[in-house]
Parts: sequence; structure tokens; C-alpha cells
Amino acid sequence: MSTQPSINGSVPQRLAQTRELMSREGIHALLVPSADPHLSEYLPGYWQGRQWLSGFHGSVGTLIVTPDFAGVWADSRYWEQATKELEGSGIELVKLQPGQPGPLDWLAEQTPEGGVVAVDGAVMAVASARTLGGKLEERGARLRTDIDLLSEVWSDRPTLPNEPIYQHLPPQATVSRTEKLGKLREVMKARGADWHFIATLDDIAWLFNLRGGDVSFNPVFVSFALIGQDQATLFVAMSKVSAELRATLEQDGVTLRDYSEVADALRALPAGASLQIDPARVTAGLLDNLDSGVKLVEGLNPTTLAKSQKSLADAEHIRLAMEQDGAALCEFFAWLESAWGRERLTELTIDEHLTAARMRRPGYVSLSFNTIAAFNANGAMPHYHATEEAHAVIEGDGLLLIDSGGQYLGGTTDITRMVPVGTPTEEQKRDCTRVLQGVIALSRAQFPKGILSPLLDAIARAPIWAESVDYGHGTGHGVGYFLNVHEGPQVIAYQAAAAPQTAMQPGMITSIEPGTYRPGRWGVRIENLVLNREAGKSEFGEFLKFETLTLCPIDTRCLVPALLTEEEKQWFNAYHAQVRERLAPLLDGAALEWLNTRTAAI
Amino acid sequence: MSTQPSINGSVPQRLAQTRELMSREGIHALLVPSADPHLSEYLPGYWQGRQWLSGFHGSVGTLIVTPDFAGVWADSRYWEQATKELEGSGIELVKLQPGQPGPLDWLAEQTPEGGVVAVDGAVMAVASARTLGGKLEERGARLRTDIDLLSEVWSDRPTLPNEPIYQHLPPQATVSRTEKLGKLREVMKARGADWHFIATLDDIAWLFNLRGGDVSFNPVFVSFALIGQDQATLFVAMSKVSAELRATLEQDGVTLRDYSEVADALRALPAGASLQIDPARVTAGLLDNLDSGVKLVEGLNPTTLAKSQKSLADAEHIRLAMEQDGAALCEFFAWLESAWGRERLTELTIDEHLTAARMRRPGYVSLSFNTIAAFNANGAMPHYHATEEAHAVIEGDGLLLIDSGGQYLGGTTDITRMVPVGTPTEEQKRDCTRVLQGVIALSRAQFPKGILSPLLDAIARAPIWAESVDYGHGTGHGVGYFLNVHEGPQVIAYQAAAAPQTAMQPGMITSIEPGTYRPGRWGVRIENLVLNREAGKSEFGEFLKFETLTLCPIDTRCLVPALLTEEEKQWFNAYHAQVRERLAPLLDGAALEWLNTRTAAI
Repeated sequence: MSTQPSINGSVPQRLAQTRELMSREGIHALLVPSADPHLSEYLPGYWQGRQWLSGFHGSVGTLIVTPDFAGVWADSRYWEQATKELEGSGIELVKLQPGQPGPLDWLAEQTPEGGVVAVDGAVMAVASARTLGGKLEERGARLRTDIDLLSEVWSDRPTLPNEPIYQHLPPQATVSRTEKLGKLREVMKARGADWHFIATLDDIAWLFNLRGGDVSFNPVFVSFALIGQDQATLFVAMSKVSAELRATLEQDGVTLRDYSEVADALRALPAGASLQIDPARVTAGLLDNLDSGVKLVEGLNPTTLAKSQKSLADAEHIRLAMEQDGAALCEFFAWLESAWGRERLTELTIDEHLTAARMRRPGYVSLSFNTIAAFNANGAMPHYHATEEAHAVIEGDGLLLIDSGGQYLGGTTDITRMVPVGTPTEEQKRDCTRVLQGVIALSRAQFPKGILSPLLDAIARAPIWAESVDYGHGTGHGVGYFLNVHEGPQVIAYQAAAAPQTAMQPGMITSIEPGTYRPGRWGVRIENLVLNREAGKSEFGEFLKFETLTLCPIDTRCLVPALLTEEEKQWFNAYHAQVRERLAPLLDGAALEWLNTRTAAI
Repeated sequence: MSTQPSINGSVPQRLAQTRELMSREGIHALLVPSADPHLSEYLPGYWQGRQWLSGFHGSVGTLIVTPDFAGVWADSRYWEQATKELEGSGIELVKLQPGQPGPLDWLAEQTPEGGVVAVDGAVMAVASARTLGGKLEERGARLRTDIDLLSEVWSDRPTLPNEPIYQHLPPQATVSRTEKLGKLREVMKARGADWHFIATLDDIAWLFNLRGGDVSFNPVFVSFALIGQDQATLFVAMSKVSAELRATLEQDGVTLRDYSEVADALRALPAGASLQIDPARVTAGLLDNLDSGVKLVEGLNPTTLAKSQKSLADAEHIRLAMEQDGAALCEFFAWLESAWGRERLTELTIDEHLTAARMRRPGYVSLSFNTIAAFNANGAMPHYHATEEAHAVIEGDGLLLIDSGGQYLGGTTDITRMVPVGTPTEEQKRDCTRVLQGVIALSRAQFPKGILSPLLDAIARAPIWAESVDYGHGTGHGVGYFLNVHEGPQVIAYQAAAAPQTAMQPGMITSIEPGTYRPGRWGVRIENLVLNREAGKSEFGEFLKFETLTLCPIDTRCLVPALLTEEEKQWFNAYHAQVRERLAPLLDGAALEWLNTRTAAI
């Protein structure tokens, strides 16, 4: 390499160096997405090249660099932050809005005929590369996925994480890895696939009953997996696996190879072999290694569907984890009530005390995401996170929104509750009530098994739409079992495509979390997790209903009970009765007292 | 032609002759869909070739003939009829089920390599031909759309209909044809189209403010239209147009050419011209006439969207038509109450008296579809129609379902009501109540402007799903303005694809008609038409709400009022108060008395 390494260069210096390389390679535009070879939600530092090159530290954004332009595309959550961070960098903020053209459309429009767009194929999904490549071809331009320009300029690139891998064991692991592998192989046979390649970390962790600590909040480890009818290979850094675990895995028919050898393994697949992949969940760079004679069998990873359908035994453990999580919340809330007016409370204090309460609970492993404690105007930003530099003191009147969750050996939790501070206004209480009505309407719903989950969204939104209010995020995301707090394939969001794979199946766990966000004023969200349970079969087919898993009082002081119908009050009181019954045995003292007070019938 | 004409030959003879021709032409499979060159819902006899060749007279079905197989694909509505009619014909009934492969999939699977499938291109949509052609190509087979085998064997083919064309005039026609053409040309310009070709009859009737009588129930006429920036040509049989109308049209810049000249006109479009078409609404056979240098601009016909958005002035006329229609229904129901036990009532008597009541109303033109009067078990068939040969006598106890509608100069109506016969059972009343709750839930809904209409369906179904009941048809279809009772682009049905064009816009009229069908026992459906009205703009965007247009009591004797919530009762009573207020001035005597009794508050 002839290029002089940049030692902590400024963003303009980094851009200049990058443009030099682009010119050397004849590249007209460089695309740097927020992505890694596993297309994960949370990226290890090694793959945060977009942050490094642009200086914009938001978790989602896309950078494009051309000889005379550089821009970061970011959605409304990040506009404030990006405006600040990009100042003086020579990089423009391009505001990404729903339904408007995005960065790939921009490239398709701006790239001149004969132009070359480069992206590190290691971090772009096959499906995206095909779409972009197709659009560029229409213009007589071309996509290159075989070059990683960034690695040449990024001298102080972090190393890959190296946390130990451990087993997810019985009793919480209710299905063995050999059984899971056996079922996967049946699906592969049915689809005519000799091999199945998986790049997504939660699918791999689930399939092998293994967990790790490479990524914040998600108990996964950096790896790939290649499964054949008679063998299963896990590609990981060997230093993460103890000799004992290695022996156990080998006994179960799982071979370990180094993480770096995955390309070799793909290259070694013989012509004529059939390989199953999910083009949305495997990167183009990896597939470039395949012999052109390998036949692709494309579709949703079978593990993604299997992982989403928790077993009845899983559900039992989740109920226990929910009891522990609810008890932790009651302890926290009891402390909070005692602390009002006694000590200075900030959004950060909330986070600390809540995390501490969870840590005391058996089975707790870690948080499942960054706690959101957001007071009044901060609550209007759905993905707000308080920092040392910027956080609110909680005083006066209003609403405090707390969205938090934990990883337990027996499940993953995610809950949002509204806390009254001083005296909330009537308008604030009205917003909370309408949002609660959305939660109740969907929680009570029964629906045909197999319905596409986006189609259920209107049931939750109807009471909120009735007030001429809507919210930009989805109403519900899938939740893992001691795994990622966001997982597919189901999604309750009218903004999402109602694809066949989003069909509701028994055992899926989904959040129900409608909201209302009044910019600069306050935000409301109430969130429970629900389990898809069989509701029996009639002459009209099979039906599903939700079991509410989350156990924690919904504070009546934030509500206008007169707005609730009789049926809604019945649901609310029955829910609180159950919360009381199941959490009381785990609590005493002030926490028990708080539980009893806050679950009184209305 | 060397083939001997068949004079009223039997189905086996017709098939034999067809196979002879197939063999002569080297065709492996012949596909005969239920379709015409306008892709209409109701087909003139001239295009009912599938009925003629197969002997199956259901309105929807697809025939495939190969040298050693012949089958009709039909959905569950037609299984009974098809089984009877196909007996001894040598044609199999293939039961079409939702989500199962259809006839095109069958062809794609069964056609041998090198095989040729023929379909009359004049009656297959471009989009379907592309799909089928693509699938066949993958197998190394081929689709031919340039041959109409049927016309060679079909000696007694009916002639094309020849009903006079007339103007839809003010005051009911509220936008002139020149204004409509002007707006269409603006859209064409924006999309870069020099020309726009329309084959769908309701789009043409709407655009030119013309109506006709070529098709049952739909006041349209067989035609094509080709619109340029400076000219508009209507292709119709000249005998349908009076000299006076012709002069009027010419004055408005509309040229008439004979229906048969459309192919010539398409052939004459110069290379380099751009032509806008909707590939789902234009047939492959017609497009085959285009010069290969003509550039296609594809998308929903702009007229389809414009037609769906009724003006405020249209809405005023529709309200008047709904009052007349409601008054006719009251007169009919008053007669029905007086006739119970006095005369023998059958499903046919119902149809006769109801039609007669509508005919007495000002502005009435025709029925908008075949009346469905279905007693008990017959009501469980959503598309049942009583005939002289097969109809029920209405006696004993149960439920009578009446689904009917009229064409008025100021609008199209479509209404379903349940009538108690003797004493309906508790279970029957419970079904009616749940269906009513579905109607109420959706009728009360407010929702974001532009939401994809299939996403609203769950709101209507939730109360019905709660009973482990579902229904196979959609909850709502678009309705024309003195035009087709079924029109797009919106559709409230979770079974439909939530395509961008299904977005809800102000002025659209849609049915809300949930149901419950218990095979062999009874069926329930309650249907109102609703108008999309602006519900104002908030910080969260623009919202729409429904105005219920249909005015007719919903019989309380079919309900279990105790199942209704307070809010539902309020809606029900407010609806009945409005029905009474608006219909009373049009009624007297027994009909007025019936109205007053049947709109009493619960």
C-alpha cells in the first residue's frame, strides 16, 4: 500500500484520502452503509466505518462520497445530532423521509453513464446489491462490491470483539441443538438444498444453543454457519471457545473453523451443489466466493421462522422471567415514589436505579437495550437516550416515559410505562388513555392463524387515529428468547410490507407499543409483550389470541378513566389483578405496598 | 377454413374439433379464460367462449384443453354448479382454493419442454400474459397470443351487443368531458406519455360522460379510447351513436372511429411515441399491434383514480339517490311485513317486489347487480342467486338475506339487510349482532389519508374474529357513480395485496359488508356504502373519516342488543335517527309507519 496512513486525521482529511483512492481506482461514488457482514442491528466498532469516516455517530445512516459531494442520509431521529456532528466536515445531511427517495435512489439518479459505484461487498445484503446494481445498469453504470477502500485509510480501526462463547443450557434451553439441526435439515431437504449458509448472529446463536457477548445488548457472537446434511460448521474466532465447549460441540456434530475461513469454505462448495440463503440476510461479498455452478435456493432462513415460534416450555420460562422483571420494576417504582422531592432525580438516575433493580433478580444477564428514560419533551423523541452531556432533571409537572428491558436466561423483556411527575395535564392524560386503549384493543384481539401481521396494526391505532393522531414507528416487533429484542419475521406495522413471511404463528412473541409524540412537549408510549396462543379451531379455520406476558402496573394517575369503555375497564382491572397475584409473592415492604396501591381496580 | 362448422354440437364434439385444430397448429394446451378485450366483470355473450366450449355456465372459471386432458378451474362458489354441468363432458372440475396453485401454475408445471400454449391474446391482460409467458419460457415452452382457435369452431357465436349510447348529463354529471380530458392530459404530460390507451369500459364511460347498455347492470358500452394531447378517439360501433351525439362529441374534440379499427390505430402510432397503459387492464393481443419503437409508460390508468374520487357535487347527488333507494326499500319492507302469512313468498317474489319498488323511484335506471334474496341455507352462499328452477319458499323461522342495488342517474347503490322470518334463533341473532359490530367499528373509524385500504379490514373483522368466525370475501369494494357497482382501486380486504394504488383518498365510495356464513344453515351480511370525507389536518397529517351514505333501517329483531356496547348503541340510534329524518319526507302510509317502527331507539 502506497497510501500514507492517517493517524487520527480529521474528517476532511479522511475524506480527502478516500477521494484519492477513489480516483486511483476509477470510482465515481463510494457508498458506506451502517452494516456489518452479519447485517446486525448493533455493530461492533470494527464495522463502524461510516461513523469513522463521516464523524456522524448516530447508529443508522448512509454515507455517500463522490469527488465533489459527500452526504449522510439519516432519518428524523438523527437530524439534530447529525446537524451538529457534521458541521464543518464538508458532509451534508440529507434528511431521509418516509416514502421519499433514499441514498440508493440518489446513486441511481446521479451516477453518470459509465460511472462506477463502490461498496464493500462484505457489508451489503445480496438483495440490496442486486437492486442497486440493477438500477445502475439501467443507466449504463456499474456496481463494484469487490473492494474495501475504507480499510486502506482507516489506520486506527478497532479490532473484532473477542468475548467468550457459552452454552444456553437446560432448563431454559428447551430444545437441543441436535434436534434443531435435525429439523433444519428436514426443511433443507424439502426445499432441495444440500447446504444452508447463515450469517445472522441471532439465527446462529439460536440454532446452536450458544450465546456470547460480542455485541451490546444482544447475547450473540460474531460468526457464520454452514450446515450440510451430514455436517455443521461454525466459523468463529477460536479464542472464544473453550476446549470443553469445543468437545461438546464436536460430540453434537458441530465442527469449528476460524472465522476468517468462511470465504474458503464457500469457495469449496462444488459446482452442482445447492445452497440455501436469505438474500436479505447474507452479504454480496460473501456470495461472490461461490462457484458459478452452485445453485442458490433463496428464501427466509428456516431458523428465523423456527426461532420466532417459542415452544410451550420456552413460554413457561418466559413467564417466570417476566415475573422477575416485573418485580424489579415494582422495586424501582417504589424507590422512585420515595425519592420524589427527597433527592435530585435525572434521567440518568432513573437508568441507574432501574438497572440495579434488574441486576438483583435471578437469571438476569444484561439489559436488552439502552434504557430510555425521557422526561416531557425528551419523550417526544421515540429513540431518545440520555447522556452525561445531555439529560433532563425530573422536576415540576409532566410525564416521564421509561422504556427498558432485560436479558434473562429464560427470556428477553421489553416494557414501556408512563410515570406521572407532579400533576400531568388533562391533555397528557388524554394521550395516555388513547394509547392505552390501543394497547387494550390489540391485546384483546383474536385473529386467524397465519394472518399477515402488518394487517393487525389498525386495531391498535384506531383509538389513536380517532384523535387525529398517528405515530411513525411500528406498533409491534418480534422479540427473541434470551436473544435479540428485535427479531423477525413478524412485525405489526402498517408501514411494513405485508409479506407472506410476516404471517402470525403460534409461539411468536411480539410487542404492542402504540404511542403519541408531540414534538417539543411530551411523548407517550405504553408497551407490553404478548405471546401468540392457539385459540382453537372452528369451521372457519384456526385462530390465535394474545397472552400478555409483561407484568407491571400501568399508572392510573396518567389516565382519564372516564374515557375508557366498560369493556376496557374490565380488561384493565383483570390485567392488574393478575399482575398483583403473580408479582406479590416476589415482593415485600414498600415494593409490595406500591404494587397493591397501583393495581387497585378503577 | 377447412374445418366443418359444428351446428350446436355437444361439448365432447366441440372439444374434439378444438383438439383437431390444436393438432394442426402444433398447440399443446389451449387456455380459455373468462374474459373479454375490456377485462370486464360481466361479459357479453360474444365473449363467453369458455361457457360455450365447456358447458359450465358459472360467470368465473378457466378452461384448459390439452390433447388428453380438459379441466375447468373454478372457486368454491361454483363447485356445485360445475359438478352438475360438467358431468359426462369429459371435462374435470379443478377446485380452486385460496393460496393454492391456479390454472396458470398448472400450465407452467405441465407444459412439456418445447410445448406451445395458446390463448386468444384479445382476452388476456398484458400482465397475465407476461407472467405466464415468463413461466413457460423458464421451462423452455412458449406462449402464443396471436391465434383465436375458438372462432374457428364456434359457429353459432352470438353477435356483439348494439345498445344505443347516451350522455350522462348535468346536473348529475358534475364535471364536463372536456375538463376530465384536460386533467387526464396533465397527468399524461407529467408521466411523459404522448398517448393514453384505455380498454376498460367504466373508465371510458366516466371519461366521456357517456353511458350505454351493452353489459348487464353496468351502464357501459363496448369501446376503446385513445387519447393524445390534441385528440381523443373513441372506438365504437357507429350504429350505437346518434348523429346528434356524434356532433356533440366532435364539438368537444372527440373523434369517433369504428370499434374494429382500434388495431389499425395502435399500429399507426409512430416509433418513438410514448403510450401510457395499465398492463393489468389492457390485453396482450391489442398491444401486439404496436410498433416495437413505441415506448410504454405503465401504471394505473389515471382515470381509475380520478373516477374513484367523487366530487362534492357528485356526493350531493349520491345522497339524493340514497334517499330514493332507501325509500324504495322501506316501501318494499312494508309490503313484505303485510304479506307474511297472507301470500306465498319465495326468493323470487322478493326480487320482483323489490325491483318494482325501485323502478317507481325518480332517477332509477336499472338494477346495479342481480338481486340476492337468500333464505336460511341459501344465505350461506355469498353469491347465491335464486332462479325459476331453484329457489326457496320463505316460511318457518330463520333469516332472509337481501343484497340488492340500483343504478340511478345520480349514483349507484348496493345494500344488504337481514330480515327476520318467524323467530330467528339466538345463535342467528348473535351472528347478526357481531356482523353489525363489524359494520359499526369500521364506519366509526378515522384514519390517515392515503392509508392502504386493505390495512383497515381488521377493524371490521375484529368483533367477528372474536367469535372464531371469518368470511372469505372482502369487507369492502369501491363503487362507481352511476357506473359499475365494483370498481377500484381501493379494496378493504386483508386477502388483497396492499398495493400503493389502494390508498384511501377523499371522495372514494366503498362498501362495508362483513358477513358470517354457516354452510347449510344460514348466512349473515350487513352492508352500507360509505364516502371518504376529509376529517381535518393535525400535526400528524391529514385524516379521513367515513360518511355512511346508505339509508335504511337495520332490523333490531335480528339482534341481541345486550351484546352491543354503549358506544355501539349510540352509533346505531344516531344512524336510525338520521335514516328516519331523511326518508320520512319521501314516504307515507304503511311505509312511513314501518320506517318509524323500525328506527325506534334501542
